Amino acid sequence: MIVNYTIKQIRDTISTFRKRNPEGTVGFVPTMGYLHEGHASLLRKARQECDVVVLSIFVNPLQFGPTEDLDKYPRDRERDLALAEQAGTDFVFMPSVEEMYPRPMRTQVEVSGITDVLCGASRPGHFAGVATVVSKLFNIVNPHRAYFGEKDAQQVAVIEQMVADLNLPVAIVPCPILREGDGLAMSSRNVYLSPEERGEALSLSKALSRLRVWRVNEELTFGELRHKMKDEIQKSPLGNVDYIEILTYPGLLPIAQDFTVHDADFDYIVALAVKYGATRLIDNAIVRQPLGEV
Amino acid sequence: MIVNYTIKQIRDTISTFRKRNPEGTVGFVPTMGYLHEGHASLLRKARQECDVVVLSIFVNPLQFGPTEDLDKYPRDRERDLALAEQAGTDFVFMPSVEEMYPRPMRTQVEVSGITDVLCGASRPGHFAGVATVVSKLFNIVNPHRAYFGEKDAQQVAVIEQMVADLNLPVAIVPCPILREGDGLAMSSRNVYLSPEERGEALSLSKALSRLRVWRVNEELTFGELRHKMKDEIQKSPLGNVDYIEILTYPGLLPIAQDFTVHDADFDYIVALAVKYGATRLIDNAIVRQPLGEV
Repeated sequence: MIVNYTIKQIRDTISTFRKRNPEGTVGFVPTMGYLHEGHASLLRKARQECDVVVLSIFVNPLQFGPTEDLDKYPRDRERDLALAEQAGTDFVFMPSVEEMYPRPMRTQVEVSGITDVLCGASRPGHFAGVATVVSKLFNIVNPHRAYFGEKDAQQVAVIEQMVADLNLPVAIVPCPILREGDGLAMSSRNVYLSPEERGEALSLSKALSRLRVWRVNEELTFGELRHKMKDEIQKSPLGNVDYIEILTYPGLLPIAQDFTVHDADFDYIVALAVKYGATRLIDNAIVRQPLGEV
Repeated sequence: MIVNYTIKQIRDTISTFRKRNPEGTVGFVPTMGYLHEGHASLLRKARQECDVVVLSIFVNPLQFGPTEDLDKYPRDRERDLALAEQAGTDFVFMPSVEEMYPRPMRTQVEVSGITDVLCGASRPGHFAGVATVVSKLFNIVNPHRAYFGEKDAQQVAVIEQMVADLNLPVAIVPCPILREGDGLAMSSRNVYLSPEERGEALSLSKALSRLRVWRVNEELTFGELRHKMKDEIQKSPLGNVDYIEILTYPGLLPIAQDFTVHDADFDYIVALAVKYGATRLIDNAIVRQPLGEV
């Protein structure tokens, strides 16, 4: 496994691979590090589908708000590299902030509409930061395929929109959420949780898992479904609901509250964000038609 | 010369070239068509420096304001193709608006700061439209080198900023303004001018050509220089000044009015925009230090 710290190095590394394998495909997994099994599943999928697997580890200041957890975002480079190697990574790109932003950034890639809701509403500027850094990373790595986890479902929608709108020559591969044994969606931020919070945080995945049952009810409206979600989550007294939303996916448009869930012939997302102390957790389920697999 | 109308076609054309010439360089000249000698000079320069020359012709709706001349922007595809072929073009990409924007655009590439002045101030949204379409075209063509005329000096500054900020793997090659025999900067919009306007429009290039004389004056301040420019241009009664500005280049920052021109140790641009009837003409001179060649 080759680890590169500068843009020039990683470009040279990939260009050497390309020269030796003109038909070889490059798979790319962009991350902020502190890797867990969710990231490993992306790397393994890239390993299966591509000839070379590139991982980037970069905690991107642009996508953190001024009051957010940039400085204390967890980092463990040594463990990250061990996990990356085990998951079959070939090249790691691990730039400093100065390497990525050597002078004040004046250019921003902005996706409108789908960024106004969910995490975009709670975290203004977040998705412009994500779209901008992902553009930069795509331009540096120039991958054939890029892998993103569906835990950040809105991020996947934003990246797919950007790729289509800007004709970026890359295929986006969304990958399913990975969960702990008890159901909690894997996240680098889970380490922040106290034991009590960790216990109650199960309310998110529990509510989502009940979706399968609730959806069978032929009378239930989207408004009522949302209420059921809310009731389930509010059983956890430590949790502070940021949002509970049901929207079309990937367009993230509102759905009429009196529309019957059973009759939905469009894909939709049930998306949750709940704060435990200072730790904001998100989780979601995407219901796809006609099979409606959650 | 191969002419392609779809993104898939031009990608295939260029990819075939790349497979046959893995080390071959791709030169790119993006235009809005109605080509003149200025465009031809860009194509010839690309021809000299690159193994294949790609021209795009696309009147980009995104960069026109609602009251601007999108619909009546001059078009002459047959003459364009003849001129392109003569200048040594290999591939022409000539997409329709539907091909470039098949669904509502939600993604925008925005460059801040340097877009607030000059044409950016008079044409809100113009440079976001330019940066977005140039991003798209770069992602479609994936050129090694791209050629832009310095008549649109602010555009060159915006594109260079975008390329640096987003790590686009392309070298931007700015090329000098081409002028008619009497000095008028070449522009597709010159055809709009009535014979009287065409005569008076010389005031722009005349004022700029006097720069060389005025700059020798060791006492002259930037404020006074701007005044002299204004006086010269206002000798033309049909002209309606949009702006006369002297700014650092390429940063486009203001310069203190009482600073002595002779003492300037930085590059600066003298930029003019004057309306003749509905036709807005621009022209400029970039003064580079230490030689200070205009």
